[in-house]
Amino acid sequence: MNTANEVLEPLRHLLSLEHLPRAQLIALLDRAQCLVDGEGDRAALAGIAICTLFFEASTRTRLSFQLAAQRLGADVLNFDVSTSSTRKGETARDTLRTIEAMGVRGFIVRDNEDGSVAALAAAAGPGTALVNAGDGRSDHPTQGLLDMLTLRQAKGADFSRLKVLIVGDVKHSRVARSDLHALRTLGAGEIRVCAPPTLLPADATLAGCTVSHDLDAALEGVDALMMLRLQRERMEEGLVSSLEDYHRDYGLTASRLRHAAPDAVVMHPGPINRGVEITDEVADGPQSLVLRQVRNGVAVRMAVLETLLGGPVRPC
Amino acid sequence: MNTANEVLEPLRHLLSLEHLPRAQLIALLDRAQCLVDGEGDRAALAGIAICTLFFEASTRTRLSFQLAAQRLGADVLNFDVSTSSTRKGETARDTLRTIEAMGVRGFIVRDNEDGSVAALAAAAGPGTALVNAGDGRSDHPTQGLLDMLTLRQAKGADFSRLKVLIVGDVKHSRVARSDLHALRTLGAGEIRVCAPPTLLPADATLAGCTVSHDLDAALEGVDALMMLRLQRERMEEGLVSSLEDYHRDYGLTASRLRHAAPDAVVMHPGPINRGVEITDEVADGPQSLVLRQVRNGVAVRMAVLETLLGGPVRPC
Amino acid sequence: MNTANEVLEPLRHLLSLEHLPRAQLIALLDRAQCLVDGEGDRAALAGIAICTLFFEASTRTRLSFQLAAQRLGADVLNFDVSTSSTRKGETARDTLRTIEAMGVRGFIVRDNEDGSVAALAAAAGPGTALVNAGDGRSDHPTQGLLDMLTLRQAKGADFSRLKVLIVGDVKHSRVARSDLHALRTLGAGEIRVCAPPTLLPADATLAGCTVSHDLDAALEGVDALMMLRLQRERMEEGLVSSLEDYHRDYGLTASRLRHAAPDAVVMHPGPINRGVEITDEVADGPQSLVLRQVRNGVAVRMAVLETLLGGPVRPC
Repeated sequence: MNTANEVLEPLRHLLSLEHLPRAQLIALLDRAQCLVDGEGDRAALAGIAICTLFFEASTRTRLSFQLAAQRLGADVLNFDVSTSSTRKGETARDTLRTIEAMGVRGFIVRDNEDGSVAALAAAAGPGTALVNAGDGRSDHPTQGLLDMLTLRQAKGADFSRLKVLIVGDVKHSRVARSDLHALRTLGAGEIRVCAPPTLLPADATLAGCTVSHDLDAALEGVDALMMLRLQRERMEEGLVSSLEDYHRDYGLTASRLRHAAPDAVVMHPGPINRGVEITDEVADGPQSLVLRQVRNGVAVRMAVLETLLGGPVRPC
Repeated sequence: MNTANEVLEPLRHLLSLEHLPRAQLIALLDRAQCLVDGEGDRAALAGIAICTLFFEASTRTRLSFQLAAQRLGADVLNFDVSTSSTRKGETARDTLRTIEAMGVRGFIVRDNEDGSVAALAAAAGPGTALVNAGDGRSDHPTQGLLDMLTLRQAKGADFSRLKVLIVGDVKHSRVARSDLHALRTLGAGEIRVCAPPTLLPADATLAGCTVSHDLDAALEGVDALMMLRLQRERMEEGLVSSLEDYHRDYGLTASRLRHAAPDAVVMHPGPINRGVEITDEVADGPQSLVLRQVRNGVAVRMAVLETLLGGPVRPC
Repeated sequence: MNTANEVLEPLRHLLSLEHLPRAQLIALLDRAQCLVDGEGDRAALAGIAICTLFFEASTRTRLSFQLAAQRLGADVLNFDVSTSSTRKGETARDTLRTIEAMGVRGFIVRDNEDGSVAALAAAAGPGTALVNAGDGRSDHPTQGLLDMLTLRQAKGADFSRLKVLIVGDVKHSRVARSDLHALRTLGAGEIRVCAPPTLLPADATLAGCTVSHDLDAALEGVDALMMLRLQRERMEEGLVSSLEDYHRDYGLTASRLRHAAPDAVVMHPGPINRGVEITDEVADGPQSLVLRQVRNGVAVRMAVLETLLGGPVRPC
């Protein structure tokens, strides 16, 4: 789709990983790696105001972005629209444009509707950058980036040799969609997906993936597992009969993990339902990269904010 | 009431625009204009702690004050008393005095009771400054100041030549009261008010204003329109029959706006009920100053905080 | 239990005052006294992130810690778990370890379960420090420290000459337990406790204390009164018949206070139920140290955070 040599347009917003050029994706990972190893520059975004604008609550994601922004010296404001009594029927577009008029230059936006963050970005003024912190089932690009960074740290930069298995509710998961976009862009050797049929999307999301409903078989020889969170709503909707059944068929246990490559790594976007998607033994075991993902998340978000709002990004 | 030459007492709190001397009002506008044009001084309030103390929620106003305080280098704390489970029957006065004892020197206070902010100010210690961020129907002085700054930018400093029309629920509006105080202090040439009789105050609020219930007539030749927000409670209280009726009689449309002077400007304190007080075409049109008001709001609040809490205010 | 000459292990967490060595307790008070008199060092914790993690809401305590951390230059994050919709069944341990993985080094934790903060501390990584901001009925060590600092300022460092009276709901009070630990460590001359039998603990909490149910008698000659807050739940639980009865029997009035030593001081952890534990006249009178306690609270929390997270603490 693009070559490493093409001249890249500067990134204005980060809305999706779907059409992010490979060179830009790699540049973000490289910069994030610098920031994992070293220190952020507290002057990078000094005097720049950034607002988290969460129409759907998520303290964990908000904290990660807030820490990233603080380490770059930005002023951070939080607007938790989901619990605000002040929205008073104002449109999301007016909320954004109002806070933008106050001088805020960066927005971290989460919403439960597909495409809503891109729609807001279209309404933003020329100096304003938006980061999609999760919209509906569509995208969660910084999660995709942090997953790729974690995978690259563990397995090296050549993704063509990797067999990656995604387990769980791909149908409702923006994490899975962002991971799939990034894995394709980075040329992952094989992408497998394993889930109950009720949790698999019917559209083109899984194009090119090997789909299975048998976890033991799907695990055979994989280098990396990306476990997805099971939302409790799936039980209420009748898509999953019970947590016990789900765990029996799709839960990752230490014995099951032995089907994978011996040095396979296990990832999960959190928060984990312990004993459902994954047992304690696996979650806290040596192959788990769960906390490493969280750590990388702050560095990835710093890299994104620097790239969108800072001057030219400094070398390591 | 005062001359430009009199020596002004330093401003201790900002509680109302009613008795604010003209010279002090103009000094605040002048300083805010500097801050719109230039940069704030991040050392101005370094090490000074400011707390927003909102007994009535308002994220938009809180964010504006928070940004203003951050740009002056202050430490900002938020206490949203309206959603706090910790008030536990403590009096507002004890809440204030407790946070004051922690070393907080500035309080931004909003409450739904008339006069409550002034009552709190009377309880504050000698080094403490309060800013009224809206109390009941009485006052919202920083909104009044930002409206005057916006008007002055658009129409020049000589208010005696201006015909200003305020449209809507003056009866329940602290914004209108603060605007009226400031317009009188600045010597506005003519102040008209247009609203349904049920939304007009019976007291002295409108002294000197030309009151009308016919928007087309009231618009004739005005230089500036200040549209007020219609709270949905007015319908429940039976003061307005329906949003549709209100819009038909008192909503500002592009065709109606042609009755005003050709260069008339349109203001609204936000958040706008689009299609009620004002159509999209007008809200987003070339005569609308709505986003300019928001931008000026931060500068006005910086000027107020600097004046109350900083050392001598620096020239532009 | 320890001598002033022993070499102290550096303090890793502050979980309880029960086993805190006397020399360490005094070092914290000494450092807090420096900070009351002078300025904090805004570089002391620069670049260090601290998170308030409140499983039980308390705005007042959160603000005090937040101010303390800001004055030391730390980045402060607030996670009010009690109102968060995002906890989603995650264990407290996973919440802590996740935020820790983001690079947060200090946690201020409040929870309504006894021992829960110590349990979390056991799960924390080697570079992480926890401060117990109140757990169940067990401990509230920074409140104990600020009470001791306040007492020392008023009465001098020799506690052996002091008669201290604690009045009220010791049974349910973590404040009382932390005060009792500290008073014993500092060698208070006499500790009296006065409360209705229903509000007294049956365990070893009151070992060595003189217990009474007659406030007038208990007041005789005391140098310091520590009034405890009466939670309204006690009425619902039938432990107290009514606020009026409680006030009649255990409320501190100006006339009752005359039974104490003429220079006796009155303390209360706040928020005060005026007219219940204490009358307005006493709360706002010359013997009340209530606001001084609040002021000292910030300094004590600065001293604790510096000691746990900073380099070697500077002399005054």
